[in-house]
Amino acid sequence: MYKHILFATELNETKSYIEDKVTQLQQFTQAKLSVIHVVEPIPNAYYVGVYGAIPNLDSIDSIGTTKIVKERSKEVLQPLIKRLNIEEKNMHIPVGHVSDEILAFAENENVDLIITGSHGVHGLQLLLGSTANAILHGAKCDVLAVRFKA
Amino acid sequence: MYKHILFATELNETKSYIEDKVTQLQQFTQAKLSVIHVVEPIPNAYYVGVYGAIPNLDSIDSIGTTKIVKERSKEVLQPLIKRLNIEEKNMHIPVGHVSDEILAFAENENVDLIITGSHGVHGLQLLLGSTANAILHGAKCDVLAVRFKA
Repeated sequence: MYKHILFATELNETKSYIEDKVTQLQQFTQAKLSVIHVVEPIPNAYYVGVYGAIPNLDSIDSIGTTKIVKERSKEVLQPLIKRLNIEEKNMHIPVGHVSDEILAFAENENVDLIITGSHGVHGLQLLLGSTANAILHGAKCDVLAVRFKA
Repeated sequence: MYKHILFATELNETKSYIEDKVTQLQQFTQAKLSVIHVVEPIPNAYYVGVYGAIPNLDSIDSIGTTKIVKERSKEVLQPLIKRLNIEEKNMHIPVGHVSDEILAFAENENVDLIITGSHGVHGLQLLLGSTANAILHGAKCDVLAVRFKA
C-alpha cells in the first residue's frame, strides 16, 4: 500500500495521538519510515519562544542561529525517533520554508504518504493549518492529516 | 485505530487507485465503512455534463432534477458499493454543498477518518482541490487525501 512514509512533525507535536497512527500505519504497510522537521530561517525572537532559551543568542548571526536550532531540534527529536524506531539517518532537519522542504523531500525520496498534523497545538493553529493546506495542494502523493485530540 | 471510515467520492472517482486504499484501510482497522456522494443543487447544464444525458431534462424543475440525479447517482455507485462490500444503508447521497454535507455527516455519525481524492479527474481539478481543502479545514477527525494516479 505504501512503501515510504514521511512523518512531518513540529517539535511540540510529538504526542502519542499522532505517533500511534504513524506506528500502526508503518507496521501495517511495512513501509520505510522517515521523519522531517523543517527549521524556518525566521527572527531570533521566534526561536526563543519555540525552542526555549538559547545561550548568547544575541551574539549569533542568523546562520549561526540556524545551526544551533538544528542541533537543538535534533536533541528534542531524539525521544521521538526512539519511540518510533527510526534510524538517525532517516531523521531530516532541513532549513527553509516548511511546506517547500517537505514537498521537495517527498518528491526526491519517493515518499508515497505524508503524515502531518491538521492543526497545531499551543496557539500555532493558523500557521500549521496553512502548512497542512500547502502540503495537501502541492503533494504528488497521499497526505494523511491527523487531527489533534487534546 | 479507526472505527468509522467515510469514503467521500465523486461519481467519476470510482477508480481502483483510491478503492484499493479504502479497502485495505478498512480491512486493517476493521472499521465500519460508509460512502458519501453529495449532489449539488446546481444548474441543469452541469448535470448533463457530469451525469450524462437525462431524458426530458428541460421539462423538469430544479427539485425534480435533483431527485433524478440522486437516483442516477445511486445507480452509478452500485458497482462501487459492491466492490467495497458496503451495505446499501451505508451509502449516502445527500443534496447540498459538498464539504458542508460531508462534514455534517462525519460529525453526526462519529466518523474518525474521511478518505477523499486530493485532486479531481476530468478537468474538475480546481473544484475538487478546494473541496479537499474545505474538508481538511473543517473536519474534526483525520483526513486522508488520496492523490490521483492516472
